[in-house]
Amino acid sequence: MKIVIKIGGSLIQLGEEIDLELISKYAEVIRRLKREGHKLVIVVGGGVIARKYIETMRKLKAPESVCDLLGIKIARLNAYILISAIRNDVYPKVPETLEEAISVFSMGKIVVMGGLQPGQSTNAVAALLAESIRADILVNATTVDGVYTAPPETPGAKKLDQVTTDQLMEIMQSSTEFKAGEYRLFDPLAILIVRRARLPVKIIDGRDPQNILKAIRGEKVGTTVIP
Amino acid sequence: MKIVIKIGGSLIQLGEEIDLELISKYAEVIRRLKREGHKLVIVVGGGVIARKYIETMRKLKAPESVCDLLGIKIARLNAYILISAIRNDVYPKVPETLEEAISVFSMGKIVVMGGLQPGQSTNAVAALLAESIRADILVNATTVDGVYTAPPETPGAKKLDQVTTDQLMEIMQSSTEFKAGEYRLFDPLAILIVRRARLPVKIIDGRDPQNILKAIRGEKVGTTVIP
Amino acid sequence: MKIVIKIGGSLIQLGEEIDLELISKYAEVIRRLKREGHKLVIVVGGGVIARKYIETMRKLKAPESVCDLLGIKIARLNAYILISAIRNDVYPKVPETLEEAISVFSMGKIVVMGGLQPGQSTNAVAALLAESIRADILVNATTVDGVYTAPPETPGAKKLDQVTTDQLMEIMQSSTEFKAGEYRLFDPLAILIVRRARLPVKIIDGRDPQNILKAIRGEKVGTTVIP
Amino acid sequence: MKIVIKIGGSLIQLGEEIDLELISKYAEVIRRLKREGHKLVIVVGGGVIARKYIETMRKLKAPESVCDLLGIKIARLNAYILISAIRNDVYPKVPETLEEAISVFSMGKIVVMGGLQPGQSTNAVAALLAESIRADILVNATTVDGVYTAPPETPGAKKLDQVTTDQLMEIMQSSTEFKAGEYRLFDPLAILIVRRARLPVKIIDGRDPQNILKAIRGEKVGTTVIP
Amino acid sequence: MKIVIKIGGSLIQLGEEIDLELISKYAEVIRRLKREGHKLVIVVGGGVIARKYIETMRKLKAPESVCDLLGIKIARLNAYILISAIRNDVYPKVPETLEEAISVFSMGKIVVMGGLQPGQSTNAVAALLAESIRADILVNATTVDGVYTAPPETPGAKKLDQVTTDQLMEIMQSSTEFKAGEYRLFDPLAILIVRRARLPVKIIDGRDPQNILKAIRGEKVGTTVIP
Amino acid sequence: MKIVIKIGGSLIQLGEEIDLELISKYAEVIRRLKREGHKLVIVVGGGVIARKYIETMRKLKAPESVCDLLGIKIARLNAYILISAIRNDVYPKVPETLEEAISVFSMGKIVVMGGLQPGQSTNAVAALLAESIRADILVNATTVDGVYTAPPETPGAKKLDQVTTDQLMEIMQSSTEFKAGEYRLFDPLAILIVRRARLPVKIIDGRDPQNILKAIRGEKVGTTVIP
Repeated sequence: MKIVIKIGGSLIQLGEEIDLELISKYAEVIRRLKREGHKLVIVVGGGVIARKYIETMRKLKAPESVCDLLGIKIARLNAYILISAIRNDVYPKVPETLEEAISVFSMGKIVVMGGLQPGQSTNAVAALLAESIRADILVNATTVDGVYTAPPETPGAKKLDQVTTDQLMEIMQSSTEFKAGEYRLFDPLAILIVRRARLPVKIIDGRDPQNILKAIRGEKVGTTVIP
Repeated sequence: MKIVIKIGGSLIQLGEEIDLELISKYAEVIRRLKREGHKLVIVVGGGVIARKYIETMRKLKAPESVCDLLGIKIARLNAYILISAIRNDVYPKVPETLEEAISVFSMGKIVVMGGLQPGQSTNAVAALLAESIRADILVNATTVDGVYTAPPETPGAKKLDQVTTDQLMEIMQSSTEFKAGEYRLFDPLAILIVRRARLPVKIIDGRDPQNILKAIRGEKVGTTVIP
Repeated sequence: MKIVIKIGGSLIQLGEEIDLELISKYAEVIRRLKREGHKLVIVVGGGVIARKYIETMRKLKAPESVCDLLGIKIARLNAYILISAIRNDVYPKVPETLEEAISVFSMGKIVVMGGLQPGQSTNAVAALLAESIRADILVNATTVDGVYTAPPETPGAKKLDQVTTDQLMEIMQSSTEFKAGEYRLFDPLAILIVRRARLPVKIIDGRDPQNILKAIRGEKVGTTVIP
Repeated sequence: MKIVIKIGGSLIQLGEEIDLELISKYAEVIRRLKREGHKLVIVVGGGVIARKYIETMRKLKAPESVCDLLGIKIARLNAYILISAIRNDVYPKVPETLEEAISVFSMGKIVVMGGLQPGQSTNAVAALLAESIRADILVNATTVDGVYTAPPETPGAKKLDQVTTDQLMEIMQSSTEFKAGEYRLFDPLAILIVRRARLPVKIIDGRDPQNILKAIRGEKVGTTVIP
Repeated sequence: MKIVIKIGGSLIQLGEEIDLELISKYAEVIRRLKREGHKLVIVVGGGVIARKYIETMRKLKAPESVCDLLGIKIARLNAYILISAIRNDVYPKVPETLEEAISVFSMGKIVVMGGLQPGQSTNAVAALLAESIRADILVNATTVDGVYTAPPETPGAKKLDQVTTDQLMEIMQSSTEFKAGEYRLFDPLAILIVRRARLPVKIIDGRDPQNILKAIRGEKVGTTVIP
Repeated sequence: MKIVIKIGGSLIQLGEEIDLELISKYAEVIRRLKREGHKLVIVVGGGVIARKYIETMRKLKAPESVCDLLGIKIARLNAYILISAIRNDVYPKVPETLEEAISVFSMGKIVVMGGLQPGQSTNAVAALLAESIRADILVNATTVDGVYTAPPETPGAKKLDQVTTDQLMEIMQSSTEFKAGEYRLFDPLAILIVRRARLPVKIIDGRDPQNILKAIRGEKVGTTVIP
C-alpha cells in the first residue's frame, strides 16, 4: 500500500520539550510498515517552536507569508529529527518541492517532509502528496481522537465516526483562523484536495501511534473522511 | 509605489494564438510604470495552452497536482514572453519560489513570474507576493470589467464597484471548481491572503491595459476589493 | 541493451492537438522494452507548440538563443506528458543537465528528457546522451520513413537503407536552416557526435511506434546510419 | 569599511525566549552602519533552541555532523529573524554556501547568515567570510565583555585588553569541547583563519549593541585580537 | 557598448605554467573597459591543463561528452583566476547556465565564464552569450594574429583582413577535429550562431591584450568576420 | 562494512602527470570491495595541480578561502577521473555538500568526492563523512607508510604502529601550516572529528593500493589511530 502519514507538530513537542519517547514510537511504527512492504511518505508539522518563531516574526511586523516560510523551515527540522529516529531505509534529506518529493519517493525510500510553500499548511502538503503518488490512504495523526461536531471541549460536542468533506469543511470553517502556524485540524485547501482526489482519509489520535496501524488495517478508530 | 499586477493567462492568448499586440501594450504600460519610479512584480497566468496540456494530462489520468505542475510551467513560459516584450530593466529569469522572487525584487528589477507550487492558483501567488513585499496595490487584470453579483452572462447580474472579501468569497464559492487550470477570478486562498494582509485590490478589465494605469492612479475603474 | 529513443515533437502533436493515442502507444512500447530488461533514455522534441512560442518570441525580436530556451522548456513539457503516460518505472522529473540525466539513469529508472541548452537540438541531446551512457543503439523516430537522397517530396528522391555520417551530413546541410525550433532530421552537431562516438543509429517512421521494436530487434526498417 | 559582525546565538535568546528588544537594537545599529556607508555581513549563531534540537538528535544517537547540520539550519532561522528586524537594504535570503554569500555581498546589500557546513562553528564562518571579502574588521559580539585569562567565573580570571592569536588559542583549548552547538568563544579553526588572514578582531559584550559602534570607531572596548 | 571577449585557454597558460603576467594585463584591459562604461562578458577557454585532464579521461575510455564535462569545469577554474585578477566590479561566481549568465549580466557586473554544456566549445558559448545579450562586438583573443587561408605555418598561407562566415566555415572545416578540448579557432556551431545573429566579430592576437582595445575602438587589427 | 577511503591528491599525480596506472589499480581495489558487498565512499585530494592553481591565486593576492575554493574544485576533478576509472556501480556525479553525499550514499552506489567548503581539508571531509554514515573504518592512503614520530626524513624519526588522537594532534601541530592546499597528513579538524566519533582509522602507504585491502581485513599495515 502507498501510505501518507501526517504527524501534527504539537504531537512531537510537549510544551517546550521535544517528546523523544513518542518520536521513537512513531519511528518504530514506520519501520514496521516499511518491513510489511508499504511505501511511505511522512509529513511532519511545525508545533510549538514553529509558533514561537512565527510570533517573534509577527511582532517584528513581518508579512504572514514570510512568517509561514519560517514555520515551514521548522517543520523541516522536525522532519530531520524523525529521520534520525527512523534511521534505516529512510531518505536522509527532507525534500523541499513537490517534484523533489515525488522523485525521491519513486526511488523506494521512506520520505519524510515538512512544509513546501507559504499559503499551504502541512495538512495541505500531505494531501497534495497523497494525490500525487496516488496514495491508498492518508492518515492524519492529531492531538484529538477524531473530528467533533464542535471544538472537542465545547459541551455537547460529539465525536463523529464518519464525515463527508462537505461536513468537514463546514466544521472547520467555523473554527479556523487563517494564519501561519495556527492550529488547523484540516484546512480548506487540504479538504478540497481530498475531495477532488477522492482520497481515503483517517483522522486519528496520534498520542498513541498504534492507532496508525489500526487505521491502515481498516480497524475502527478515529474519524473516517468520506471523500 | 510597490505594485503587483496579475495578468490572466486567457488575456494574452486569443483562442490558440498568442496576442502579441496586447502583450506589447502591457509591456508599454509596465515600462511606463517603471519609469515613473514604481517597483513592480507581474504574475502571468497559464491560459488556453495551459488548459490544453492539463486536459491531456487528465486524459492520461495524471493526478491533479501533477496537472497543476504543468500548468505552472506553462504560466512561466508566458512570463518569458512578457519578459522579452518588456526587454529592459526586467529580470531575465522567472523565479520559481517565493523566496527567489522576494530576493530578486530586492535588487530593483521588474520581476515577472508564473506559478509556484501545485494547489495555488496564480491569483494566490500574486496575493502571496503582494503580501510578502508589502505592496501598495494588487491589480488583477481579467477578461471581465469587474466583479458581478453572479456570472456576468447571467440575466440580472450587476457589476459591483466595491466588494468586501466576505462578499467576494461568497460570490466565488458559488461558481468555482477546484481543478488545475480552471477559470477562477479569485480563489479562496487568494481571498484569504488579501484579507489577512489587508491588501488593497483592484479587479479590472485587462483587455485594455490602460485600465491598470487608471487603477494605480486611483481613478474609478473595475471593482475595488475592501480587505 | 542500453537504448536511447528520440521522439520528434511533431509526432506527438497533430496540428494544434496533442496526439494522445500515439503517445499511449509509445508508452506501451517503452514499458515493454523496460520489461524485457532494457535500459532506456527517451528524448522528446518540441513540436508545433514550441514553434508557436518561438515565433512569438521572434516577433518580439528576442535573440534566437532565448527563443531556443523556450523551445527547450516546451520540449520538457512534452516529456512530462510522456512520463504521465508511461506511469511506472519512470523517473518523474525531467533532467535539465547532462550530468543530472546520467546520474538519474545510473539509478535504473527510465529517463525522459526534453532539451538541454540553447544551440543544441534535441537530436544532438539524444546523441550526447547515447554517447555518455555508451548506448547500444540510438533510435530516431521521425515523421518520415527514413533518410532520402533529397527532401522526400522532391521528385526522384529515393529512400536509403543505409547512409554513412558523411552522406548524412551532406544531405542535411543542403536542407537545413539553423534556427530555434526548425525542422531538422539530424543536425550537424548530432551527426558529429554520432560519428565520434561510433553510435549505431536507426532513423525510422515514428508514426508507428512498433518500428522502434523492429529497429531494436535488428529487423529491416527505416535507414541505418553507419557511424 | 567592510565589516563582519558575529552575533552569538545565546544573545538573541533569553532562556527559551527570543529577545525581541535586543534584536531590534541590533537592527538599529546595523541600519545605522549601513547609512554611514559601511558594507556589512552579519553571522548569527544558533543559541538555546539549536542546542535543544541538537540534544534531541544526540539522544537519538545521530552522528555529531548530522547534529551540526541541524544547528546550522537553526542559526539560519535566527538570521531570518534578524533580516525581518532590519527590514530594508538587507538581502532577504540567507546564503547557504560561501560562494553564494560572497556573490550576494558583491551586489551591495547587507548579508545575514547562519552556518555553512558541519565541522565549522559560526565563528569560523564569520572568519572565513571576513577573509573572503577582505573585511576591515570582524566584531564578535558575545555574552561576556572580552577574553579572560580563564573562564570569567574562575576566581582570579582577568580580562585582557589585547590577546595574540597564540594566547587566544591556548586559552580556548583549555576550555573547549568540540561538539555541535557547544559554547565556544572562538574555536581553533576560527583562530587559524584570523591568524592567516591577519584579520583585525574585536571581541565585545554583545548585550549592549552600542559596543559594536564603539569597536568600529576604534574606541576602547572588549578585547582586541592581534592577528 | 556591450562587449563579449573570448580568451583562449592556451593564452593564459605557458606550457604547464599559468601566465600570471598576461592575466594581469587582461585584468587591466577589462577594468579599463569597465571604467569607460562598457558592459562586459568574458569567456575563458580550457587550455593545456584541460587537455591533460581530457587525455587522461580518454585513456580511461570515458565518452567524449564526459571528457567535455571535465574540460568545461577546468575552463571555469581559469575563469576564477581571471576573476581574482580583475578583483573589483566583477561577479565573484562563474555562471553555469546561459540563463544564469544573462541574469547576472543584467545586474551590471562584469561576468566571467568558462563553458556550459558538452558539445559546445567555449567559442560557441561566447557566440551564444553575445547573441543573448545583443552584444555590439565579440572579440576572440587567440594565439595567432588573425584568420589565415590555411593553417598559419603552411607555406603560402595568407592572413585575411576580412572573412565572411561562409569562408570561415570552409577554412575551419578543413582543419578541425571534433573532440573535447581540441584546438579550434572557431567551430561550426560558433560560426552558425555568429551568422544567424549577425554578430560583429574580431579575431585578434591575444598575446597582446592591447589588441582588444584596438578592436573595440575600430582600429585595424586581426581579422574581421563579416556576419 | 561501511568504508571511507581517503586518497591523497599527490598519490594520483606524478609531478605534473596524472598517474593512470595507479588510478586503475585503485579502481580495481574499489570494484573488488564493492563486489564483496562493502559500502564505499571515496574522498580524493587535490594534489600538484591544485597547488599550482592555488599558488597562482595567492600571487594574485586572492584570500586563502577563495584559494581553498579552487583547491576544492580541482579535488572534485580528480574525483571525476576516479569515477571514470571505476566505471560501474559508481554514482556519476561528485556530491558538493555533506547532505548530498549522505543522500547519494543511501541509494547504494559508490560515492566519490573531492572537498566541500573552504576551511576544511579533504581529510576533514573524509572524517565528517565517515562520522555521518557511521563508517566501520576510515582508510587514509598517503605517500608515506604510516605516522612517524617526526617528519619521516628527520634522522631518528620512527614509524608508529599505533597512535592515539592526542599523540597525532601533537605530531601534526609541530609540522603543519594552515593554508589552502598545503600538505597535511591529518589536520586538527580531522583529528577532532575522529576523536569525537570514535572512528577506527588506518593510515597506510597508498602507493600500493593493496594496502587498502590489508587495512580492511585487519592485517598489520601502516599506523592504526586509536580514537
